[in-house]
Amino acid sequence: MYINTISHYYPSQVVGNEHFTKLNNLSSEWISERTGIFERRKAGEDENTATMAMAAVDLLLADMPYDKGEIDLIVGATYTPYDTIVTLGHAIQHHIQVPNIPVLSLSTACSSFLNALEVVEGYFAMGKATKALVIVSDHNTAYYNEMDTVSGHLWGDGASALLISKERLSDQDMHIQKIITGGAATSGKAVEAVVLRPNDRGVVMPFGRDVFQNACLFMPKVSKQVLEDCGLTIDDLDYLIPHQANHRISLNVINTLGIPLEKLISNIQYLGNTGSAGCAIALSENKDKFQKGQNIVITVFGGGYSYGAMLITV
Amino acid sequence: MYINTISHYYPSQVVGNEHFTKLNNLSSEWISERTGIFERRKAGEDENTATMAMAAVDLLLADMPYDKGEIDLIVGATYTPYDTIVTLGHAIQHHIQVPNIPVLSLSTACSSFLNALEVVEGYFAMGKATKALVIVSDHNTAYYNEMDTVSGHLWGDGASALLISKERLSDQDMHIQKIITGGAATSGKAVEAVVLRPNDRGVVMPFGRDVFQNACLFMPKVSKQVLEDCGLTIDDLDYLIPHQANHRISLNVINTLGIPLEKLISNIQYLGNTGSAGCAIALSENKDKFQKGQNIVITVFGGGYSYGAMLITV
Repeated sequence: MYINTISHYYPSQVVGNEHFTKLNNLSSEWISERTGIFERRKAGEDENTATMAMAAVDLLLADMPYDKGEIDLIVGATYTPYDTIVTLGHAIQHHIQVPNIPVLSLSTACSSFLNALEVVEGYFAMGKATKALVIVSDHNTAYYNEMDTVSGHLWGDGASALLISKERLSDQDMHIQKIITGGAATSGKAVEAVVLRPNDRGVVMPFGRDVFQNACLFMPKVSKQVLEDCGLTIDDLDYLIPHQANHRISLNVINTLGIPLEKLISNIQYLGNTGSAGCAIALSENKDKFQKGQNIVITVFGGGYSYGAMLITV
Repeated sequence: MYINTISHYYPSQVVGNEHFTKLNNLSSEWISERTGIFERRKAGEDENTATMAMAAVDLLLADMPYDKGEIDLIVGATYTPYDTIVTLGHAIQHHIQVPNIPVLSLSTACSSFLNALEVVEGYFAMGKATKALVIVSDHNTAYYNEMDTVSGHLWGDGASALLISKERLSDQDMHIQKIITGGAATSGKAVEAVVLRPNDRGVVMPFGRDVFQNACLFMPKVSKQVLEDCGLTIDDLDYLIPHQANHRISLNVINTLGIPLEKLISNIQYLGNTGSAGCAIALSENKDKFQKGQNIVITVFGGGYSYGAMLITV
């Protein structure tokens, strides 16, 4: 399947590390050394998971290669829902006013982007859809505790939107060669390391070290797997976009894979951990620099645990 | 695809209408006349969306036609998540200890059961899975306000689990002939009639009348559609299981379809509105009464809005 177009949105409000110095006595150096984060974006009072996705969709529709009425599937991805009944997907269906098509929203935590694309792949395989709108949006600051000195300074907000088609529609389309996803709830401290219980303190990360270690194991492994499955090796890779959780995890992943720093794409430095939206935003932000024939791997790891990798050929 | 086996669980705590008479001065007659509900089940202090699903899965595994290690996909369905990072599906993966398979959780509100099955159908169509575990669980009382005189008395808690295979595995399997799902977020007051915003009052239903009217429109229409698509008519239908939101909606639906009361399966009288789990629980509770060759339609309608129908041949 093919990415026809992609957009992203993040809020205008910038929160620098000094905010957490004042609040929690964490120095900017301490934060940036441990996480790679210098600043992050925070949604405004009138923003939420759905409105950020709408903003991304509006940018997409302004530059759309076909009529929005041809969209025949909407899949929303988020673990920070504004509304679990009027789900992200349904809010977007209402926003674009395209009736009578399948709509759903899912979560696999920070891996949700790849699972959403895999669900689209399934609708295409069934013959129940041919052109899908995928929105990925996380409003982490709706569920975080900024006084939490363990993880309060990690989170940012953002969204991305993509149009995906079963067949190639133009030379500009990016080809999704293969997607692998998996649940890893049997690994390490999967079901307690990072949790978001809406009725109990929101998002907390009591075992960050276990998340770090498993992220560093799963992302290189599944990245190699997706390349191998397509008959490629690590030398064929032009860019890697790992889940934007912590820059030290990203550096560890490229070190394990033996790829140079210039092949790593990151936005955590200025966006923080934007959850499942992070990799999609990074793909959107960098789309103009990709050249025909280049191979990009997006690899993700999420609480729960969950993992995945996708090979895109430009 | 085929339902190999199905189970259900609901909590032991019974809440009769008299609870709401004491609390909100609503008489039992007033409640039962308007909703058909006489009592509902409420999860205990130590129960949640995941633990109820685990209880249903334990019943399923005790009577399983193959080794649990053959399960190659887990899909969770809920709009009342206990944890959006360690999602329902991931909690169940951890519970059954089957590693390295796709796992995800989704919501289309009260239609989530059918969308979960359709996602399974997609994984089967891609060739990425052959035997799926589907769990449907809603813990409405985690998000309701029992003092809400409009909808507080409607909600109940419950869960169901199903094993679904791509190929027929035994004569006892029920055949899922066809699934139709759709988002209807462009209809009526779809995006405001019933909402569940975890950070803002939980589940509320400011426009119940609009929900009622649209449920009575969409469920008959899509039920007829699923029969027609399979070359059947309403006369070929043996049982209808509509979403268990309100017994008056169910009666309206069978009246519109012109089918007799004895073909209607309901559990709302003693379970209340158990959300996306209601129809799955009803299918499980009644499995022994179905006879070979009988046709059952499950039809759903959910906030957001969302709708669907599924034809099962026993």
